[in-house]
Amino acid sequence: MIKQVLFGILGGALVLTAGILIGHYGIARSPYSWEKDLDESLVHKFLSEVDNVQIEQNLRELTKVPHMATTAGDEQTVQLMLKRWQDPDTGLDQAWREEYLVYLSFPDPTKPNKVTVVNAAADVLYTAREKEKVYTEDQKDPEVVQPYAAYSPPGEPKGKLVYANQGKPGDYKLLSEAVDLRGTIAITRYGGAGRADKAINAAPYGVVGVLVYTDPLDINDGLMSDASETYPHSWYMPPSGVERGSFNTRYGDMLTPYLAAKEETYRIPEENITGIPPIPIQPIGFEDAEKLICELGGTEAPVGWRGAFKCTYNFGGPGFKPTSAFRDSDVKLAIFNTAVTKNSSNVMGVIRGSEEPDRYVIYGNHRDSWVHGAIDPSSGTSVMLELTRVLGRMVKKGTWRPRRSIIFGSWGAEEFGLIGSAEYAEQYFAKLSERTVAYINVDIAVFANATLRASGMPSLQNVIFTAAKQVDAPGLGATSVYDNWIRYANRTSSAHGPVPRVGYLTGAGSDYAAFVHYLGIPSMDISYTYDRSKTNARIYPAYHTAYDTFDYASKFIDPGFTSHQAIARTAGNVLIRLADSLLLPLNCSDYAESLEDYLNTAVTLYQTQTQAQNISMEPLERAVASFRSAATHLDQVIRSSDPANETPLKVRRINDQLMLLDRAFLDPLAFPDKHAYRHVIWASSSAGKPTFPGLADAFANAETTGQAGDWAKVHYHLSVLSQAIEGAAHTLVDVI
Amino acid sequence: MIKQVLFGILGGALVLTAGILIGHYGIARSPYSWEKDLDESLVHKFLSEVDNVQIEQNLRELTKVPHMATTAGDEQTVQLMLKRWQDPDTGLDQAWREEYLVYLSFPDPTKPNKVTVVNAAADVLYTAREKEKVYTEDQKDPEVVQPYAAYSPPGEPKGKLVYANQGKPGDYKLLSEAVDLRGTIAITRYGGAGRADKAINAAPYGVVGVLVYTDPLDINDGLMSDASETYPHSWYMPPSGVERGSFNTRYGDMLTPYLAAKEETYRIPEENITGIPPIPIQPIGFEDAEKLICELGGTEAPVGWRGAFKCTYNFGGPGFKPTSAFRDSDVKLAIFNTAVTKNSSNVMGVIRGSEEPDRYVIYGNHRDSWVHGAIDPSSGTSVMLELTRVLGRMVKKGTWRPRRSIIFGSWGAEEFGLIGSAEYAEQYFAKLSERTVAYINVDIAVFANATLRASGMPSLQNVIFTAAKQVDAPGLGATSVYDNWIRYANRTSSAHGPVPRVGYLTGAGSDYAAFVHYLGIPSMDISYTYDRSKTNARIYPAYHTAYDTFDYASKFIDPGFTSHQAIARTAGNVLIRLADSLLLPLNCSDYAESLEDYLNTAVTLYQTQTQAQNISMEPLERAVASFRSAATHLDQVIRSSDPANETPLKVRRINDQLMLLDRAFLDPLAFPDKHAYRHVIWASSSAGKPTFPGLADAFANAETTGQAGDWAKVHYHLSVLSQAIEGAAHTLVDVI
Repeated sequence: MIKQVLFGILGGALVLTAGILIGHYGIARSPYSWEKDLDESLVHKFLSEVDNVQIEQNLRELTKVPHMATTAGDEQTVQLMLKRWQDPDTGLDQAWREEYLVYLSFPDPTKPNKVTVVNAAADVLYTAREKEKVYTEDQKDPEVVQPYAAYSPPGEPKGKLVYANQGKPGDYKLLSEAVDLRGTIAITRYGGAGRADKAINAAPYGVVGVLVYTDPLDINDGLMSDASETYPHSWYMPPSGVERGSFNTRYGDMLTPYLAAKEETYRIPEENITGIPPIPIQPIGFEDAEKLICELGGTEAPVGWRGAFKCTYNFGGPGFKPTSAFRDSDVKLAIFNTAVTKNSSNVMGVIRGSEEPDRYVIYGNHRDSWVHGAIDPSSGTSVMLELTRVLGRMVKKGTWRPRRSIIFGSWGAEEFGLIGSAEYAEQYFAKLSERTVAYINVDIAVFANATLRASGMPSLQNVIFTAAKQVDAPGLGATSVYDNWIRYANRTSSAHGPVPRVGYLTGAGSDYAAFVHYLGIPSMDISYTYDRSKTNARIYPAYHTAYDTFDYASKFIDPGFTSHQAIARTAGNVLIRLADSLLLPLNCSDYAESLEDYLNTAVTLYQTQTQAQNISMEPLERAVASFRSAATHLDQVIRSSDPANETPLKVRRINDQLMLLDRAFLDPLAFPDKHAYRHVIWASSSAGKPTFPGLADAFANAETTGQAGDWAKVHYHLSVLSQAIEGAAHTLVDVI
Repeated sequence: MIKQVLFGILGGALVLTAGILIGHYGIARSPYSWEKDLDESLVHKFLSEVDNVQIEQNLRELTKVPHMATTAGDEQTVQLMLKRWQDPDTGLDQAWREEYLVYLSFPDPTKPNKVTVVNAAADVLYTAREKEKVYTEDQKDPEVVQPYAAYSPPGEPKGKLVYANQGKPGDYKLLSEAVDLRGTIAITRYGGAGRADKAINAAPYGVVGVLVYTDPLDINDGLMSDASETYPHSWYMPPSGVERGSFNTRYGDMLTPYLAAKEETYRIPEENITGIPPIPIQPIGFEDAEKLICELGGTEAPVGWRGAFKCTYNFGGPGFKPTSAFRDSDVKLAIFNTAVTKNSSNVMGVIRGSEEPDRYVIYGNHRDSWVHGAIDPSSGTSVMLELTRVLGRMVKKGTWRPRRSIIFGSWGAEEFGLIGSAEYAEQYFAKLSERTVAYINVDIAVFANATLRASGMPSLQNVIFTAAKQVDAPGLGATSVYDNWIRYANRTSSAHGPVPRVGYLTGAGSDYAAFVHYLGIPSMDISYTYDRSKTNARIYPAYHTAYDTFDYASKFIDPGFTSHQAIARTAGNVLIRLADSLLLPLNCSDYAESLEDYLNTAVTLYQTQTQAQNISMEPLERAVASFRSAATHLDQVIRSSDPANETPLKVRRINDQLMLLDRAFLDPLAFPDKHAYRHVIWASSSAGKPTFPGLADAFANAETTGQAGDWAKVHYHLSVLSQAIEGAAHTLVDVI
C-alpha cells in the first residue's frame, strides 16, 4: 500500500512535471495577441455589415441644410457627428470637438456682390445673376450662400472686358500682346490654373478685376439647356450654376502659419498674407459668361481658348464689339466680401488600440460644404459614419478591438484651405509624427459610378489592392472592385506586371495635404469615379454649386448608393488591415519602384544638360539604388520572419521601419517658398514632370534663365534628394 | 481494477492538467529578457574594472604626436581607434570610418603668419613670436602648428594699434567714442565674446585687423613668469602660450549647411559664408601683448578693461604713446591662412543591442586636437577607450550584451566647428531622430581635480545623480562623486531639495551641439573640474596651446589619473543605465521643473512690459502647467507599473514617450538666423537670461527698438513656445 502510494505520488509528480513542462514549453501562450495576424473573418464580417441604406440615410441627414464652415448648419453637423460617435451602442470610445479661430472670408448677406455692364452714363445694361436658379425646394434655404470667391478682396473695379482663357501666366502674356490690359476686367474659365492664380497672374498686367466661370465644354460635355439637358434632367450643371471656392494658394489658416490657430496665437498682419487675389475676383454662371463673352470685340482668340458657346471667343477690344448693345460699356464688379476670424470645429473620435494604442491609423474627411454639399464632402462623411457604426458596434459589444488606435477626424473649414486638418497637424505635430501609421482620406466618396480611383504613397498600393480584391464592384456581379479598376486605369509594374494605376498625392486637393506634405505620413485618398470615355467633365458638374444636394446625389451620382458602399468597404478594409495586422501592410519595395520611375524620368529629361553644367546625377542614382537594395533587404527580413513567432519588439521594429519611412523624406528647408511642403518626393511642382518636384522646378528655372546661380539650385536639389533618399535607405537596412 | 485504472487515468489527467496550468500561468517565462531591469552587479563589475593606468596609457599613446584634423597625426589616431575597436578580445561588434570632405583653414607652413611693429620707413621695430617657446621635447615636433585663427581671411593690414578689451559690441562702441577706429588694428583679449565676433564686431567701425591674446588675469590668476610661475613649473600658461581656435560662429561644415559634406554634395559659394571674420585676425601670446598694450597712448581705458599687466591699459592714441620706442609706428599683420576642403574621418563603433537594437545610446568625443591635445580632447578619448575596453571585453566574452545598441563616435574636425558630429547628424538625420535615446559627450574629461561638472537635459539629471552616487570621489576616501559635487555646485530643487546643479547645454561648446540643437536628443556633457575658490582661470591654462601635452596632463591636471577614472566610471555608469535598463532612466518631471524655472524668470522679467503691449503670457503659463500635469501623470503610470510584469510593448510605449520628449521641442523655423538651432528650450541666446532663448532675445530686441514689429516677434516666440510645450505635454499624457 505504501509502495502503491509512493508510486502514485511519484507517478503523480512525474505527470505533474510533464504537465508543467508541456504547459511551459508546449503551449504557445498569448499574454499579448501578437501571435495572431489579421483575422480575415473579421474583414468579411465588416464587409457584410456595410449597408448602402445606412449610407443613404446618413447623407439625407447630413444634407438637410447648407453647412458652410462656422455657420449654424455646420454646428448641426458637429452635433450630428458627436451624437453618432458618442452613441452607447454604435459609437467610438471617445469623441470630442476641437476649436480653432480661423481666418475666413464671406460675402455680405445684406449687400450681395454684383457684376454689371454699365455704360458711360452709368446706366446698368446688364446684371449677372446673384444667386443660382432654384429648381428644388432646398435651394430656397436663405443659408444658400451667394456664389463668391473666398479671399477675394472687396472693391468695385470697372473696366473694359477681355477674355483671358484660363488665366494662366501664358494666357495673360499672349493676351497682353494683342490688348493693353491696364484697367481691364478679365473673364476667365475654370481649369488650367489655380483659382487665386487667375487673379494673381492678372494683376501684373494692370488688370483690375477678374471674372471666372465654368465653360460648358469643360463641365457639361458642351450641353447647356436647362430645359432638357442639365440638372434637374441630368447631372450636368445648369446655366446659372457657379463653382464657389477658396481663392488661396496655401493650405492651413493663413494668419497662423505653422502655428495652431488658437485664440491667443500670434497672427501675422493681414497685409502680409500672400497667395490670395490682389484684385477683386468673382465667379459667375455660364449663362452670364456667354452673354459677356459672345459680345466681346477684338480679334479671335486661339483655338485652344475656345469653349462651347456658339460664338467666337474674341480677346476683347478691350471691351465689347461695336455691334454689341454693350459697345463702349464697362464691366463692373462690386465685391463686398469681408475677412473674419471665426471658430471652426474639428470633431474627433477614437477607438483605443489593444496592443499598440500608441500607434495611430487616422481616417478623416472634412465636414463643411459650400452649400448642401451632398457629394462634397457629405458623400465621404456618410461613408465615414457607416464605418464608425459598423466598427463602433463591434467595439461596444466587446467583440473586437483593433491592435492599434484608430482616430477619426471630421475636419472643419476644409473648403477655405484645408484649415481644420492643417491646424490639427500643427497642434499635434510631435505626437502625430511619432505615432501615425497612415492617414486615409475619403472626401468626395463618389464622383461617378464607373471605377475606383486611388492616390497615395506607393507603400500603400499593396494594401489598397488587397482590399479592392475583396470587394464586389457595384452592379457587376462577381467582378471585384480591383478587376473592374484595372480595366479603367492601369500600368505595368516592374515587380507585379499589370496593376491598377495608383496616383500620387503631389498637391493639396483635400485634407491629406498636411499629412503628406507637412507630417510625412503614408496617406491615401480614394473615391469612385468616371468612365472617362463617357465624359470630359473636369469634375462632377454640381461641384461647389447649389445643386450639390441629396436629390442630385441620389438621382444622378449614385442611385442605390452602391458605389458609396463599395468605397466604404474598400476604405474600411484598408483601415482594418492597417489598424489590426500584426505586421503593417506597407510595402517599401513598391516605394523603390516609384523612386526608380522618377529617377529614370529625371535622367532622361535632365542628364544631358546637368552634365554640361558639370553637375553629376550619380549621387541621386546611387541613392535610389541604395534605397532599392535596402527595401529588398527589409522585404527579405520580413519574408524570412514568421511574425507570429517573433518577439513583439522585433515585429514592432520592422513596423517602425515601415511606418517611419516617409518621415525620412521630410526636409523643412527644401522648399522655402512653399508653405508647409516638406516631403521632397511628393511636393507640388509647377514643372509638370513625373519626377522629383524640387529638381523639376529648379531645372525648369535654370533652363529658362541659364544663370549659374539657378544651375546651382539644381545641384542643391540633387543633394537634398540624394541625402533624403540615402537617409530613408539607412532606416530600412539593419537597424544597427 | 478497471475502476482503479480509470481513477488513475483520471487522477493523472487532473494532475497533468494542474501541471499544465501551473506551467502555463504559474512560471514566468523569459522568452525575452524584459523581465529583468538593470543588473546592478553588472554596474559594480564595470566600476571595478575601470582602470586609471589604462587611461594613462591611452593618453600617452593618443598624444605621441600632434593630431590636428586631417593631418598625418590625425590619421594615426584614426588607426588607433580602429585597432582598439576592432580588437578581437576587447573591441566592439563593429567599427569603421566615415569620411566627409570639409572646409578647413590652415596657416601656410612655408610662410608663417607674422605680427610686427613697423615704422614709417618700414623698419620692423618688433616681431611677435611665430611659435610658442619650447620647454619639452615633444614641442619640437615640426607638426606643431603655428598659432593662428582658423577661418581668418589672409591679408596684410597695417594701422595704428588700439586696445578693445574683449571685442564685444559695447567695447568697440565705447572705444569708438574716444578714438577714430578707421584703419586701426585692435588688440583684444579672450573672453566675453566669441572668437570670430571680436573681428565681426570690429569691422563696422573700420578696424582693419585684430589681435587677440589671453590676459594673465583671465587665465593665470595674474601670474606671468616662466622662470617660476608658469608651465613647466605649474599648470599656468607660459608667456608665449597662445590659444588657437576656430574663428567661426556656426557649427558644422560651412559650405554644406544641412547637408552631409560628401564629395559631390552641393556647396555654397565661399563668398556666401557668414559668421567668419571679415578682416584678418591673429592670436598672440601675452608676452607679446604686454609689449604692445603697455606702449599704447591715449586715455586710460575703464577699470573693467584692465588685465594683469603692470601698466595702464590705454585705449591707444590710436597707436603708441609719444614716449614709446614704437611711437608713430603701425602694427602690421601678415596673415597667409588658406581655406581648403579636406577629408576628415569619424571613427564609429557599435555594440548591438540584444532586445532593442533599434534604440541607440550614443557616446562620443572628438579625436582631433590643435596640437598634442592631451586634455582637449584626448583626456575624453582615453576615457572612451577605457569604457570600450571594459564593455567590449564583456561583449566579446559573451557575458553581457546591452538591451539597446550603443554607438561610439570618435568625431573628426571638432576644433574647426564640431564638424564631424554635425555632418554625422545631417547624414543620418532620420535614423538618429527616430531611434536615439540619448547622447553622452565626454570631451575634456578633466579640467581639474576638484569636482564633477555636468550639463544636460533635465531629464538626464536623475541618472547622472544615480551614477555619481555610486562612484568614489578621487582622493576623498568613501565620499562619493555626488556628495563631493553637491558641496561645490548646488541648488534647491522644488521636488528633491538640495541637489548638485546640472547646467544646460544652451550653446555649441562641443559635439553635443548637433544632438541637442539639431536632433533634439537628450544629451549630456560631463567632466571633472575646478575648485572655483582656488582659481579664476577661464579654462585650464594650456587650452589650445602647444603645452597641452601628456607631460602637462599627468603632472598638473590629473596625476595618477584618478579624476579620469572617476569620469570614466560616472559616464560609463550612465551609459550602462541608459543602454540596459528595462525602463529608461529619463525623468520628465525634472524637465517640468526646469520649464517652471524658465517660466518664472520670464514672467518676472517680461510680463509687465508684455501686458503693456497687449501680449498675454497666459498661453505659455498654461502650456507649462499642462506639461507639469502630463509629466506627473506619466510618472504615476510608471510608478504604478511593474516593468517586469508589463508587456514589452507597454514598456516600449513609455520608453518612447520618454525618449522622444525632446523631439517635440524642435521647431526648424523658430530661429531663421541661427544655423541648425531648432530646440526652442535650449537654443543659444544673446540676451543672457536664464529663460526661453527665443523669447529672451525677442524681448531684448523689442525693448531696445520699441517697434511694433519687434513686439510682434515677442508674441510670435510666445506662441512658438506655447505650442512646442503643449505639443510635448501631449506626448506625455495617455497615448490615446
